[in-house]
Amino acid sequence: MTKSGNAPVRHATMRERNLAVVLERIARHQPVTRARLAELTGFTKTTVSNLVALLEDAGLVRGGAPVHEGERGRPGVGVSVRGDGAAGLGLEVNVDYLAACVLDLGKRVRYRHVISSDHRGREPGAVLAALSALAAEAVSAVAAQGLSVAGAAVALPGLLDREDGVVRHAPNLGWTDVPVTGAPGLDLALPAEYDNEANLAALGELWFGGGAGLGDFVHVSGEIGIGAGIVVDGRVFRGAHGFAGELGHLVAEPSGPPCSCGGRGCLEQIAGQEAILRAAGLPVAGPGTGAPDDPVRTLVARLEAGDPAARDAVERAGRALGGALASVVNIIDPDTVVLGGVFSPLADWIRPPIEAVLAGGSGSLRRGAPPVEVSGLAEGAAVLGAAGLVIERVLAEPALLL
Amino acid sequence: MTKSGNAPVRHATMRERNLAVVLERIARHQPVTRARLAELTGFTKTTVSNLVALLEDAGLVRGGAPVHEGERGRPGVGVSVRGDGAAGLGLEVNVDYLAACVLDLGKRVRYRHVISSDHRGREPGAVLAALSALAAEAVSAVAAQGLSVAGAAVALPGLLDREDGVVRHAPNLGWTDVPVTGAPGLDLALPAEYDNEANLAALGELWFGGGAGLGDFVHVSGEIGIGAGIVVDGRVFRGAHGFAGELGHLVAEPSGPPCSCGGRGCLEQIAGQEAILRAAGLPVAGPGTGAPDDPVRTLVARLEAGDPAARDAVERAGRALGGALASVVNIIDPDTVVLGGVFSPLADWIRPPIEAVLAGGSGSLRRGAPPVEVSGLAEGAAVLGAAGLVIERVLAEPALLL
Repeated sequence: MTKSGNAPVRHATMRERNLAVVLERIARHQPVTRARLAELTGFTKTTVSNLVALLEDAGLVRGGAPVHEGERGRPGVGVSVRGDGAAGLGLEVNVDYLAACVLDLGKRVRYRHVISSDHRGREPGAVLAALSALAAEAVSAVAAQGLSVAGAAVALPGLLDREDGVVRHAPNLGWTDVPVTGAPGLDLALPAEYDNEANLAALGELWFGGGAGLGDFVHVSGEIGIGAGIVVDGRVFRGAHGFAGELGHLVAEPSGPPCSCGGRGCLEQIAGQEAILRAAGLPVAGPGTGAPDDPVRTLVARLEAGDPAARDAVERAGRALGGALASVVNIIDPDTVVLGGVFSPLADWIRPPIEAVLAGGSGSLRRGAPPVEVSGLAEGAAVLGAAGLVIERVLAEPALLL
Repeated sequence: MTKSGNAPVRHATMRERNLAVVLERIARHQPVTRARLAELTGFTKTTVSNLVALLEDAGLVRGGAPVHEGERGRPGVGVSVRGDGAAGLGLEVNVDYLAACVLDLGKRVRYRHVISSDHRGREPGAVLAALSALAAEAVSAVAAQGLSVAGAAVALPGLLDREDGVVRHAPNLGWTDVPVTGAPGLDLALPAEYDNEANLAALGELWFGGGAGLGDFVHVSGEIGIGAGIVVDGRVFRGAHGFAGELGHLVAEPSGPPCSCGGRGCLEQIAGQEAILRAAGLPVAGPGTGAPDDPVRTLVARLEAGDPAARDAVERAGRALGGALASVVNIIDPDTVVLGGVFSPLADWIRPPIEAVLAGGSGSLRRGAPPVEVSGLAEGAAVLGAAGLVIERVLAEPALLL
């Protein structure tokens, strides 16, 4: 409080905020003239010109083609975001794969790589070293396209301490209190942030999937674990400690199988990918199991063929998931539920029991349960959300790149 | 967007916002000099003096006693909020009582009245007419104290459409699509707003109970129904349609008794006030039951005497409530859980089973479940929150009273 009257600080902050305002308007209305930007922002034309010049110097925007605005007059010179102005690297560690994705400032995918590998029983250091190698490969691949990566965001499964970059508890990986940064951890040489994969998958769905049309939504990430990302007013709802959305540990069957979290009958023991595969009589991917590369594809083939064990397994999973989602709907009242991850390819079979339970458990009071949509991004959502988060940071704080 | 450059609109809005800023600083730091207000707001002393003059003219603040600020110099003249500058009326319709409460601008309780009356099976119009009479009584009682009521907020049980003031569904009252305003409804002759009683109870707890020390919290309103108010960053989290926090309809026992919502085994069928009383073998209050005036007091006496049926009923309710709260903790990750309403007097007996289930169902991943606190406000929370909401509106938009 004692420094609130400090003029230089206030001015710097104001200019940074104004830069972000101008960049956001350019991204939304591009190509757009300086005159129109002055109208859109309420700034004077001189202020707009100065701010645009700073953004041009930083390589974030460029003058573009002539633009006709309004009905009369000569065309003006439009300003647009430079697609190659900065890039964002998304990374993901999941239980059975690693992924990387690079987006340019226009949020176009410029690079993507997914490596299947089972991380259970492996040293965290070795997993993070493999992720570092994947990141380095991504950075050099986009450098060849003329793109400079401004930062990274890393999607991790489980509960984490985002500020310190520590995975507190990822039961499916078997990680407890694993610092992600620092030797022998992740080596990125980039500003980086860390988030739960379910949260980033929800942001991926917001920015690259159903988007604003979903309203406030809950995105269910079906992997070996099950997490949910809750989006309210276009932002992730994280809870007091960042642990919101732990859908996989809602109790689905009180006398059900024990869970790696220490509980019993947790949702992911019934509706997680491996739980469904086991119940369907299929091998799960994992070290030494000799499973086919994509066990979910096998499951889908069995479902299409009408295999009773497969159908029963998915029906039971859907009913459990519907019960958990009815609790979610009663507690947070979203506009939409989105099924993502492994539930996307299973949607034809898992959505009907989910909808049936949801209608009975939450619909009568509020006249119909929220619609259950299926993500088109499936397992790619989290790494897209991670890369998108970096781009959002750049757009929100372009001054960081000046 | 086309009017964003309209100067008069912008200036009016700016002045209104500045008035609210100054009033908020006065309320927080009172008595406070104009010079200190200039420091606290960043406005010039002239601007502060003009704004304070407007607030004085509106009767919201007044010059007070001399104030010594800092270590040297002469005392300045302090400005304080006028306790009698405006008053807020809180009203509540619940299943078995009506309540009114008036707060002055300093948020002191100046009037309070609760009437026990069972509203099940009664015409909504008759209930609302009784509430109108209670409101008129409150307004004239505080007028005798020199207080003018600026507005009202009404707490209602069930799902409602706040904008239209329509109770969509209040199963415990048996109301469906009841417009609260308009004949033969509520007649207040005051600006009024409407909210769910669980939300207002949570605000009551925030402003008059545990307050900011609770962090983000879930306040459980135990009445005949059970609702929860979710407070995040000092505000009620309402969900997409205002229906968040419907804790009473989480399924606690899938093969449990049918619920008035159309579901089965809902939490309030096991842990609601009447469900507990019935399970304890006690009469519930209601038309023709001949129950004592306060059946909860009888229950507490039985619990104190070690009555096994009473203890079993509360134990079962606590376990069901603990299970529902474990879901809440996994989904929204609050700092604190607060037990309110009828759970306050039952706390000694109901808290242990809640804590036991909560620890098992949500604690292992996050190292300990959130603490379970007991509200000191009990059933008075919602009507206090309603009256407080009116005061907050006045403080946030003092221009409305100019």
